[in-house]
Amino acid sequence: MLNPWETTDIKDYNKLIEEFGITPMKPTKELMDNRYFRRGIIFGHRDFFKFWNADKRSILTGIMPSGPMHLGHKMVVDQCVYYQNKGIKTRIAIADVEAITTRRIPEEKAREYAVEEYLLNWVALGLDLDKADVYAQTNRSVPYYRLASLLSGRTTMAEMQAIYGELTPGKVTSIFIQASDILHPQLDEYDGLEHVLVPVGVDQDPHIRFVRDLAEKIHFIKPSSTYHRFMTGLEGGKMSSSVPNSYLALNDDLPTALKKASNVLTGGRNTAEEQRRLGGDISKCVVYELYAYHFIEDDDELKKIYEDCTSGKMLCGECKQILKKKVEEFMTDLKNKREANREKVEQFAKEKLFK
Amino acid sequence: MLNPWETTDIKDYNKLIEEFGITPMKPTKELMDNRYFRRGIIFGHRDFFKFWNADKRSILTGIMPSGPMHLGHKMVVDQCVYYQNKGIKTRIAIADVEAITTRRIPEEKAREYAVEEYLLNWVALGLDLDKADVYAQTNRSVPYYRLASLLSGRTTMAEMQAIYGELTPGKVTSIFIQASDILHPQLDEYDGLEHVLVPVGVDQDPHIRFVRDLAEKIHFIKPSSTYHRFMTGLEGGKMSSSVPNSYLALNDDLPTALKKASNVLTGGRNTAEEQRRLGGDISKCVVYELYAYHFIEDDDELKKIYEDCTSGKMLCGECKQILKKKVEEFMTDLKNKREANREKVEQFAKEKLFK
Repeated sequence: MLNPWETTDIKDYNKLIEEFGITPMKPTKELMDNRYFRRGIIFGHRDFFKFWNADKRSILTGIMPSGPMHLGHKMVVDQCVYYQNKGIKTRIAIADVEAITTRRIPEEKAREYAVEEYLLNWVALGLDLDKADVYAQTNRSVPYYRLASLLSGRTTMAEMQAIYGELTPGKVTSIFIQASDILHPQLDEYDGLEHVLVPVGVDQDPHIRFVRDLAEKIHFIKPSSTYHRFMTGLEGGKMSSSVPNSYLALNDDLPTALKKASNVLTGGRNTAEEQRRLGGDISKCVVYELYAYHFIEDDDELKKIYEDCTSGKMLCGECKQILKKKVEEFMTDLKNKREANREKVEQFAKEKLFK
Repeated sequence: MLNPWETTDIKDYNKLIEEFGITPMKPTKELMDNRYFRRGIIFGHRDFFKFWNADKRSILTGIMPSGPMHLGHKMVVDQCVYYQNKGIKTRIAIADVEAITTRRIPEEKAREYAVEEYLLNWVALGLDLDKADVYAQTNRSVPYYRLASLLSGRTTMAEMQAIYGELTPGKVTSIFIQASDILHPQLDEYDGLEHVLVPVGVDQDPHIRFVRDLAEKIHFIKPSSTYHRFMTGLEGGKMSSSVPNSYLALNDDLPTALKKASNVLTGGRNTAEEQRRLGGDISKCVVYELYAYHFIEDDDELKKIYEDCTSGKMLCGECKQILKKKVEEFMTDLKNKREANREKVEQFAKEKLFK
């Protein structure tokens, strides 16, 4: 029987697991305090438990400062904050080299995105900036860049094209800098050999495999990874940065956010009568996905909604009112926290990040 | 009438000049104290006089630490020492990233070549290490690497392939690092906009054009360049690092050097009688080229040899004795100077270059 919180069909992911040798995630009891593990949203991994059980370990993620931050990005933030709260060293790379060279974002704009869209929201979502190692690719260190340069000598164009498709010079550069993001913590100039976890969406697995291969070639510990599911777009289909109505941006103003919430795709039936009789088709319902991924932490609360929906007791209109209330609370709280931390974050950006 | 010191047919170079828009070098009186200008060995340039007449100017060259240093490399050293003696800021990039990623030289070996083959000889040939800015690509600075990274976003793969042929990832990386070698002096973190001269062999012109295009795109001053002729291989044909008998290596031991000197191709005739009658064919004579390029500074002395040869007064045997004496003096002096400076150079390498 399907868990109430396993709304997405896992079959697609099983194919990925089989094809690329990703290990299915079987979370231990310890991890059950995290809803992404508990609800099967993180469905696979490579060497996760080597990381989890290691004495020397850290996590790393990248921020691409090329557009608005949305709920899809929030999934990584939540995971990083979870690990940071467990006392695990947290590194965050602002991928501004990549934004500038491959997405043609002007330097100043990339810096603005990094702060306004990302860092402020990361802190509002719980990141402890003082304890994290946040850096910009344009401003890291000589050993970091040296590693990126030398890694470029350890692979071939054919190998890269097989993974990344057509390459531009900027893309080639960015790939090795991204590889150095993941591997440089293991340099002697940083913390030496250690287990580094990179939590990503499953579409990032090719990068992970590429970097794991490079790690092996230079006798570093292969980085670990976890894979989470994609979020569905608010109106169905893919959630995509290029389609504003497909996502809730963390900086959307409240009227915009509430309007997007009103338009979220549900699993509603053709008529109220039919829905009372059959219950909602929750497997298609993006409202429910939003609850499960983001807005309802408590399993009992989520389970009640699941039952009220599938039994036909609660119709979509009522449920959307709940969603809108959750969205309003979340967005208001987030905005307040952004503003409360603005001075600190801007000072950090100016003095440390882009010094 | 051909100058006595213009031994190589200039026609081949004229073709290059016409095809690629290189400006023929017409040295001013001021430059006549340098034999490479005086003897037409430096035959072309781009924007040389913009550099020469600028208040803010520097020169830059690269050292590729992937094999022995020979007389072909010495031509660049002599030019750099010339400019340094005029008070012009001199920058030297040890291209170890390139040696490691594109020529598969192990890191330790690249460092060894850099010191044993190159730096020691540069200093022995007159470089003032204290006044020069000598650095290794693996160890420059964050702004230098940042520039290399960002430059990669300003061109296309097609453009690069047209210039460099087939590319490996290491080659792509090296090309932008080399571009940053030439352009980074103009960063605010270094000396700001200035005229940078890169003295090269004419085969390097495609790199120069590529970097000049990049300079324009980022609103830097386009670097200037001079082009010198190739040296002929000792036994005729090309001088090539992969053919030890084609070059005199600065670290060759004396018996090897003298043996190579004995075998240098001359413009001798079939018989002594014929040579007495017709004179030597000095246009084919590599001994004469060695004098003109390296071993005879005094024009009168060179002219006398020219006349004695072409008039049939002096035959090749006698001339080779002169060459061998010059080679012995040069190699002995160079070795003494290397050893006299060894401690200083090794300390510099350890503390500054590869710190």
